[in-house]
Amino acid sequence: MRTRRAILEAAAEVFDENGYQAATIGEVLNRAGVTKGALYFHFPSKQALAQGVLDEQFRGAGVVPQAVKLQELVDMALALAHRMRHDPLASASARLALEMQMTEIFGTGNTTIWLKVVEDVLREAAEQGELLPHVDPAESAWVFSAAWTGAQVYSHMLSGRADLEYRISSLFLHLLPSIAVPAVLNTLDCRPQRAAEVAEAGQRLAAEEAERAEAAASAV
Amino acid sequence: MRTRRAILEAAAEVFDENGYQAATIGEVLNRAGVTKGALYFHFPSKQALAQGVLDEQFRGAGVVPQAVKLQELVDMALALAHRMRHDPLASASARLALEMQMTEIFGTGNTTIWLKVVEDVLREAAEQGELLPHVDPAESAWVFSAAWTGAQVYSHMLSGRADLEYRISSLFLHLLPSIAVPAVLNTLDCRPQRAAEVAEAGQRLAAEEAERAEAAASAV
Repeated sequence: MRTRRAILEAAAEVFDENGYQAATIGEVLNRAGVTKGALYFHFPSKQALAQGVLDEQFRGAGVVPQAVKLQELVDMALALAHRMRHDPLASASARLALEMQMTEIFGTGNTTIWLKVVEDVLREAAEQGELLPHVDPAESAWVFSAAWTGAQVYSHMLSGRADLEYRISSLFLHLLPSIAVPAVLNTLDCRPQRAAEVAEAGQRLAAEEAERAEAAASAV
Repeated sequence: MRTRRAILEAAAEVFDENGYQAATIGEVLNRAGVTKGALYFHFPSKQALAQGVLDEQFRGAGVVPQAVKLQELVDMALALAHRMRHDPLASASARLALEMQMTEIFGTGNTTIWLKVVEDVLREAAEQGELLPHVDPAESAWVFSAAWTGAQVYSHMLSGRADLEYRISSLFLHLLPSIAVPAVLNTLDCRPQRAAEVAEAGQRLAAEEAERAEAAASAV
């Protein structure tokens, strides 16, 4: 597992710097410091390597559940912005997902998964009475996800992502008034400073869950 | 001028299909049906060709001025969505602008120009009392532009841009309540059907202006 992780991190760096087309397996081998056999055992092709990096988008993307589901949505958006700046696997998978040829090679699987995750949170929010009556969760999920991606592209282009948490915060302050009932809107914490907190709390929760699962498995 | 246009249209097709890196001048020559000499006279390099395509983003991007400046902003967004689906030059320049290596080669000039255009319209809207008092035109311009780009990326990926006008309409319905005073918000027409109308009216206006300029020049 550690070898697999080392390979993915090396591949993430290479894809992030060069893009998919220009990346080579040789360069990944150099950086990962593993044997050719080990690399091909885990990832038989460049496409498999890129798919491995893309799959990492969802690992550790969780946040601590919130009573107010719109706060949970804000936290997901902020935590992802934070990871994007500090985790090369998150950064590379975002870059790969946006490369134009990628859809032809890998399909639209990841985008569809993100849309479903956001839609589900919005549906829960609707059931709890957090949303204005006209809101269509699927349509708003599309707008929120697409706008998040646009903010990531702009922040990457104009500031090397230095202002990403700030821009995601600003984006949510622009979008939420159109879907949230006023009493809920007033309680939402969209401050950019929250990004690091919720990202770290999410990772702690995931680590605890993994530990508990391991303990349960060894007790059997 | 007609040769230049034919070359740009051929280049737009080649860049749109293959991306910048994989595009070749040979393929542009084949499609444009012009001599190598003519091509190099207008565009001495692949980079010059791409810059020519990128510059086309702003030609014909105008819309008919509106008394309500937020309506003008909606019209710009809808008209651009319409052009993106029907004008290969607009489509290719959007694709080029989003390719990851492009910023390194061409800088962030076009993005900065769009931000300024949107910010200026929002400033005029503010002066006319159309905006809520807390709105910062530069910050909202960033959010509106980035979100527009994200919607274009998603629509391209998930529907081949078939739903772009609809999605831009939906995006503006999500964003405008956070910046417009209610009395203005109620008057704004964001229907997707408006996209074709405003794009065509903008082109008619530009053609009339060009004719008048020509007539004035020949009268001198």
